[in-house]
Amino acid sequence: METIKGREIADEIRMRVKEQVEASGFNPNLAIIVVGDDKQNLLYVGLKDKAVSFIGGTTHHINLPGKTTREELLEQIHQLNLDPDIDGILLQLPLPEALQAYSDEFLAAIDVNKDVDGFNPINRGRLIYGEPRFVSCAALGCLEVIHRSRGSVKGQKAVLVGDSFDQILPLALLLTREGCQVTMIDEMPSKNPLPDAGIYVIEKGRPESVQAHQIANGALILDVGFYWHYDHSCGNVKPDALADLEGELLPVPGGLGPILIAKLMENLYSAAQGKGK
Amino acid sequence: METIKGREIADEIRMRVKEQVEASGFNPNLAIIVVGDDKQNLLYVGLKDKAVSFIGGTTHHINLPGKTTREELLEQIHQLNLDPDIDGILLQLPLPEALQAYSDEFLAAIDVNKDVDGFNPINRGRLIYGEPRFVSCAALGCLEVIHRSRGSVKGQKAVLVGDSFDQILPLALLLTREGCQVTMIDEMPSKNPLPDAGIYVIEKGRPESVQAHQIANGALILDVGFYWHYDHSCGNVKPDALADLEGELLPVPGGLGPILIAKLMENLYSAAQGKGK
Repeated sequence: METIKGREIADEIRMRVKEQVEASGFNPNLAIIVVGDDKQNLLYVGLKDKAVSFIGGTTHHINLPGKTTREELLEQIHQLNLDPDIDGILLQLPLPEALQAYSDEFLAAIDVNKDVDGFNPINRGRLIYGEPRFVSCAALGCLEVIHRSRGSVKGQKAVLVGDSFDQILPLALLLTREGCQVTMIDEMPSKNPLPDAGIYVIEKGRPESVQAHQIANGALILDVGFYWHYDHSCGNVKPDALADLEGELLPVPGGLGPILIAKLMENLYSAAQGKGK
Repeated sequence: METIKGREIADEIRMRVKEQVEASGFNPNLAIIVVGDDKQNLLYVGLKDKAVSFIGGTTHHINLPGKTTREELLEQIHQLNLDPDIDGILLQLPLPEALQAYSDEFLAAIDVNKDVDGFNPINRGRLIYGEPRFVSCAALGCLEVIHRSRGSVKGQKAVLVGDSFDQILPLALLLTREGCQVTMIDEMPSKNPLPDAGIYVIEKGRPESVQAHQIANGALILDVGFYWHYDHSCGNVKPDALADLEGELLPVPGGLGPILIAKLMENLYSAAQGKGK
């Protein structure tokens, strides 16, 4: 089992975007809205912040108190939609509990052309028919790893485990568009093997639990679950457990995480470029 | 192989909607926009017309000439969005060739709350996350047949053949939401068997071409392709070819066609009811 180095792929993408930004003369501006002070959220925001400044852009932090109301958050999004200096708007999820029921309303309020997360329902819906202006970075990241490893997916078999709106479902639709045979399973079975395939993307499971007999030999495996397990971060796969298999593994940590943020930089550059047209 | 009688299911649904309409005192109003004079389109419109008057509603026909411009059609949709007498708006597809490139723009222009076809990208996107106001009638019709035959789909396996935005893709997302294991294949293989499953929905193939060895014994098969083949209409399956298999078949003709129109009546009633709130 060969390990795919997510950080190297991410560096390559970020460097390409940095060069594009330099050549274009734009200074991409990303607004990140954070409601409350969830520590995990602040950690992710810090990583995005660093990536934006690496490519030569600017992050605008809008930190709202945990008790922000629905109306206040909608008004804030509206202001950013109107602000000609802002290229991309990102609403850090999850929101505090009192606002979660309105999540989709907030996502729908973000201007389709500034929706660098690809979470606006119009951009999601255009995965089913039409051309989304932006697609979720997690799904784009998986697709890039799959293309790098397998080339064209036409006629290939992929098994996707999970049902997340930002990752598994858009990826299923992207792969289907390319003529890949996609099987969606809502959760990793505890013992039974997954269907035979050349590509596995495993999101919803349990920490370090996937067993070698559950996976076809020679496959590409994208581990895209993330857990804090005892003292370390990990995914669904403990790489040692699959050591006897041939194939490739995108592991956790050092796998999708950095790639996802690099893909966000591509989307941000595209947003800035679109405005410049 | 038992045959499922689509017309009987459709009659049951239409009768229920008719009773709901009577009890509610509403008179649901459906606007159908037809551009050009494609004969197939006019045939389908006639069927919808009859169904609307059966449930006690009114159809408003907007027949536009084949050379209608993008701006004229958008303006027409806009007028219907504003018209308080109109509950549901339906744009008959396919459009004349000159307008096809803008199809998604027209669908996006239809008010989400009058979009009884469920084709607005916002309604499509809410299949991925959130709650669509309306879902495509073809997908809803398949789901109803599947539930009637198989009950809960949680943990069951379904194979969906095709990649249509109005049928296969929304159905895949609806089944996934219910915990069904869904495999999507873009086109019916000419000889190879489909993966083992309890439910097959076959849209994209060739007339009367599915062979018994391609299907697992005991399954529910929904034939949802439609062809004019020599002198008759047919689907992907010639029922005789599967005679030796156990299971159930929703055939063409007399299968999904009438059910789809009955589900449209449910959506129209829901639109009228929503306005009444």
